[in-house]
Amino acid sequence: MYNTRMKYYSYEDFKIDTLSLIQMVKGSHCEAIIAIARGGLTLSHAMAEGLDIRQVQSIRTELYDKTFKRDMLNIFDTCQLDGVKKVLVVDDIADSGDTLAAVMEYLEKKYEEIEFVSCTLFYKKTSVYEPHFWINEADGWIDFFWERDFLK
Amino acid sequence: MYNTRMKYYSYEDFKIDTLSLIQMVKGSHCEAIIAIARGGLTLSHAMAEGLDIRQVQSIRTELYDKTFKRDMLNIFDTCQLDGVKKVLVVDDIADSGDTLAAVMEYLEKKYEEIEFVSCTLFYKKTSVYEPHFWINEADGWIDFFWERDFLK
Repeated sequence: MYNTRMKYYSYEDFKIDTLSLIQMVKGSHCEAIIAIARGGLTLSHAMAEGLDIRQVQSIRTELYDKTFKRDMLNIFDTCQLDGVKKVLVVDDIADSGDTLAAVMEYLEKKYEEIEFVSCTLFYKKTSVYEPHFWINEADGWIDFFWERDFLK
Repeated sequence: MYNTRMKYYSYEDFKIDTLSLIQMVKGSHCEAIIAIARGGLTLSHAMAEGLDIRQVQSIRTELYDKTFKRDMLNIFDTCQLDGVKKVLVVDDIADSGDTLAAVMEYLEKKYEEIEFVSCTLFYKKTSVYEPHFWINEADGWIDFFWERDFLK
């Protein structure tokens, strides 16, 4: 539980939480992972190893206009999901939830025969979308190690 | 330099090496990153943050038959590279080099107008392909933290 306004989230924190997340997601028997880039990339790699899922793809989103949200989200869908029944969508945090909500809605409409479940490390109660699986509640800014450790 | 036959490659090792790799690649002014999944996912995330590249995509490869190499590699190309001039291709290791060689050859043929450069953390002298940028020479098996830390 992270209730400070600004928290450095280290690799050691990540390791512990990801192991818990793997245990939570395990029973879902997903066959493929879609990482939301960039935030979900490191987590998707760890989840794929822990869940022994070889098929990992990524999806990229971009805001048309920084002042608007959701409706203005461009989703670059480059996924190939032939023969897949269940997919795990991975992101680092459901913050406003706009990205995850839009991506899930988009995927569920486009691939009607596929079941999608989502997971994140952090979830904010103010998010418009709640992932199927999440570990920590966040009420401030999370300073993820991948956003901090490679800047210099 | 890793010259032992089997080496656990920790997050701390990774952090130091990735910072060096970012410095090496910086001058190339790449506009997008293609991560080779799964091995290149964590590194591509860190490189993207360090190089401030927002456009990260992934490519997936699969062997038709485990007993054969290279010629039998299926490349699932789901990249969108419109308007991009230079791309950084990221993988963890050039081991046999077959995957990276095949992916680079494929990308260079398909996107003739785009320049591709590659980087890895490890390179084996016996590899059929040498990345443009690499950090460590490997002569044994590398036990990457992402392959080890999430198994239990």
